[in-house]
Amino acid sequence: MFNSEVYVNRRRVLLERMAAMTPEGARGIAVFLGNVDAAMNYRGNDYKFRQDSSFLYYWGIDEPWFAAVLDLDTADECLYGNDVDIDDIIWMGPQPSVASKGGLIGCAKTAPLAQFDKAVSDAVSAGRPVHFLPPARYYNQMKLSELTGIPSSDVRKVAPMADGGRHASEELVKAVVSMRLIKEQCEIEEIDKACELGYLMHTEARRGCKPGVLEQDIVGRMEGVTLSKGWGVSFTTILSQNGETLHNHSHHQIITPGRLLVVDAGAESNTHYASDFTRTYPCSGKFTTKQREIYDIVHQANELAFSITRPGTSYWDVHCATVRYMLEQLKALDFVRGDVDEMVACGISGLFMPHGLGHNMGMDVHDMEDLGENYVGYGDERKRSPLLGMGNLRMARDLKPGHVISDEPGIYFIPALIEQWKREGTDKGFVNYAKLEDYYGFGGIRLEDDVLVTEDGARRLGPHRLPIASSDIEDIMANE
Amino acid sequence: MFNSEVYVNRRRVLLERMAAMTPEGARGIAVFLGNVDAAMNYRGNDYKFRQDSSFLYYWGIDEPWFAAVLDLDTADECLYGNDVDIDDIIWMGPQPSVASKGGLIGCAKTAPLAQFDKAVSDAVSAGRPVHFLPPARYYNQMKLSELTGIPSSDVRKVAPMADGGRHASEELVKAVVSMRLIKEQCEIEEIDKACELGYLMHTEARRGCKPGVLEQDIVGRMEGVTLSKGWGVSFTTILSQNGETLHNHSHHQIITPGRLLVVDAGAESNTHYASDFTRTYPCSGKFTTKQREIYDIVHQANELAFSITRPGTSYWDVHCATVRYMLEQLKALDFVRGDVDEMVACGISGLFMPHGLGHNMGMDVHDMEDLGENYVGYGDERKRSPLLGMGNLRMARDLKPGHVISDEPGIYFIPALIEQWKREGTDKGFVNYAKLEDYYGFGGIRLEDDVLVTEDGARRLGPHRLPIASSDIEDIMANE
Repeated sequence: MFNSEVYVNRRRVLLERMAAMTPEGARGIAVFLGNVDAAMNYRGNDYKFRQDSSFLYYWGIDEPWFAAVLDLDTADECLYGNDVDIDDIIWMGPQPSVASKGGLIGCAKTAPLAQFDKAVSDAVSAGRPVHFLPPARYYNQMKLSELTGIPSSDVRKVAPMADGGRHASEELVKAVVSMRLIKEQCEIEEIDKACELGYLMHTEARRGCKPGVLEQDIVGRMEGVTLSKGWGVSFTTILSQNGETLHNHSHHQIITPGRLLVVDAGAESNTHYASDFTRTYPCSGKFTTKQREIYDIVHQANELAFSITRPGTSYWDVHCATVRYMLEQLKALDFVRGDVDEMVACGISGLFMPHGLGHNMGMDVHDMEDLGENYVGYGDERKRSPLLGMGNLRMARDLKPGHVISDEPGIYFIPALIEQWKREGTDKGFVNYAKLEDYYGFGGIRLEDDVLVTEDGARRLGPHRLPIASSDIEDIMANE
Repeated sequence: MFNSEVYVNRRRVLLERMAAMTPEGARGIAVFLGNVDAAMNYRGNDYKFRQDSSFLYYWGIDEPWFAAVLDLDTADECLYGNDVDIDDIIWMGPQPSVASKGGLIGCAKTAPLAQFDKAVSDAVSAGRPVHFLPPARYYNQMKLSELTGIPSSDVRKVAPMADGGRHASEELVKAVVSMRLIKEQCEIEEIDKACELGYLMHTEARRGCKPGVLEQDIVGRMEGVTLSKGWGVSFTTILSQNGETLHNHSHHQIITPGRLLVVDAGAESNTHYASDFTRTYPCSGKFTTKQREIYDIVHQANELAFSITRPGTSYWDVHCATVRYMLEQLKALDFVRGDVDEMVACGISGLFMPHGLGHNMGMDVHDMEDLGENYVGYGDERKRSPLLGMGNLRMARDLKPGHVISDEPGIYFIPALIEQWKREGTDKGFVNYAKLEDYYGFGGIRLEDDVLVTEDGARRLGPHRLPIASSDIEDIMANE
């Protein structure tokens, strides 16, 4: 938790931004639902508690069963939660009062949780606009539906409140996105810590990558590191020798010489900021010639993207420049043939990299994805591309100081996708399928760093960068 | 996953048990909802998937977005799930078909998930009874409410279906409990493996218990062990020097000589069976005289409970005999004064042990707690006590071969509870508060093993028992 002024200031700015978007005297209330416990197999046997990120951003309380209301007309605010009884003390220990928790975030008014329900119902009855964010969790979806009378399928739809407001509030989404997108100094410090933790996790993984070891064994060792020093993983670890599957969560294979191991994993700090790194290792400790050729293209693409990331450009353009570079290199290796500009325009790179170059990061590893990817990564600046790869780009905005983004180019050989393109002629004649057939068992390579946009360029986050050059990787693995 | 015959047999027995409880020709259908992904901070960034245990028991499929229907009148059965498309293959890899998954569990009929909704709606429209278990997860609560038209607050209520069935089915709960309560040989083997994993976790914890170490550091190390070799933890690890708080999940303290560290943790195997052990360590490696006196009482209580656990008695009686023993010993140390039988009757032991001696275990660490504690641990045999401690006993049934239960006596000194009893005279004069005042900073001690009821007695589960005798603990800690 930060200093109380941080939260007071954020709520003040939020009021200003909402005021700029909503008519005077009819602004209504903004409601914030914290998360409740999420059952693993039964209620009471819950997953490790994770607070809603926007609740944490404005209200700081990292515990279940809290909610808050900010009155957009009067600037009144109230934090809702229940004080503990003797039974809670026996099982969970003595707890500070809700009033004292309110003090920690500069919120003078607190009340029991049942009064939150009443505050929302009263506003609904009085016909006041009730602004809320689209809920990520099913409990909050049910709860918002109950309190507002809006069908549960509609509470996750986002639209402007001017139309009557039977849905989540676009104004609130835009105001929150505008704030959370630009990281404060205190947040950047926490992301640097999360990145150091990610560095330690990945170091453990690289050391564990030895022939004969079970993939799951490496996963447990690296996740143990972040559980020891942070909250846990910022997303389910991707660790697989089938790296051509982008989000592969199966870890049942034995590390086998000659294959590549993709490790895409990150840590969440105790203050709930995320890191997200990817490295790809040769299982035998040495790259084959084929592997090194592809690896070096991806590595140079990662460096190129970083070198052109700065205010004055957009991540859309950084993505395009990076895939253009990769296509040039793939052409030099005879994977594709023809004019590179035309290939870029046709989206040929999507066959090799069906994902975007990167995404926003913060408290969520894909920051604010629950608020809507287009609000977060595109805004009113540009429209999403329909092309495979480009269309999966999650961050396309003009870059500004304080943006935190991932830089994660990759090249994959996905047999099912190659076969589909071949069958359907999607490649428009640019692809040399004869060459590709030799790469069906290759897997994939992805190399990812976390980057802060600064006043005049960019900085890789975390005190240490994970080794990335193919020769460095080989040297280190030979000595570990 | 077990052999397909295991699942075929379980569904056959379930049909028989349901037939014995429901009228011929109007039995209706039993529906089973698998779990869907549970969002951590946004949908798509999910907690590690955990299947619903009853779904896993009858239908074996350990993946999200599956459901099944068993027709109680015709014995028809169908597994519902969706086959993957090219987009799924890119992100999640190629997957076997739903039909082939049905084959693995001996279910010949499979269909897309949307047809599950239709099957349930059709049964509702036709006025056929729709039996379902009370859902643990909010998504399934919403979904059942949508499909059946029963208010979401009622789908978790359990009652006999004879009254019209606008709630969860007591018949289905009773039939499922009767089966899952008695473990099959293939299940016992899995629990033995989960116990070995728990042994390895706890060994790591004991080795980590050194002055100056952060509690969270030990938690991460032990959880890393189970993530490397199993699914993860079977419940959120309890590890604290404030052991008087029964479920303490704060790990922010430094291990301090003179204190006690309670470690209550268990592993879940990759096949989703749980272990659950507790040990209490002296942070300096040596118990003080005060600590050893209490420790040895708890240890002997654990041994006593195990020695009398066998078919022919009930866990209610084992609990009573164990707390009686603890009160005798506490009387010998002058914590309590007066007639021990009267103290047992008044529930004086609840001040020192506000929880029960143990609970059923299986795929859930508190097995089937989502189906209702009284259905699982009491049945029609006896009624729950209103007393503190005894009232929290989760397993009171007559013991039968195949029961798997925890044996976990404890003694705690909980200042807030002692003060409440003193203020309100709850102790009826039996408690020597002057003596207790010296124990306000003592913490608590709990010692827990996992036990299988056999034909003629009981067996501790797992190939190795964690060291437990105070002298053994001291010897081992001196050499680690």
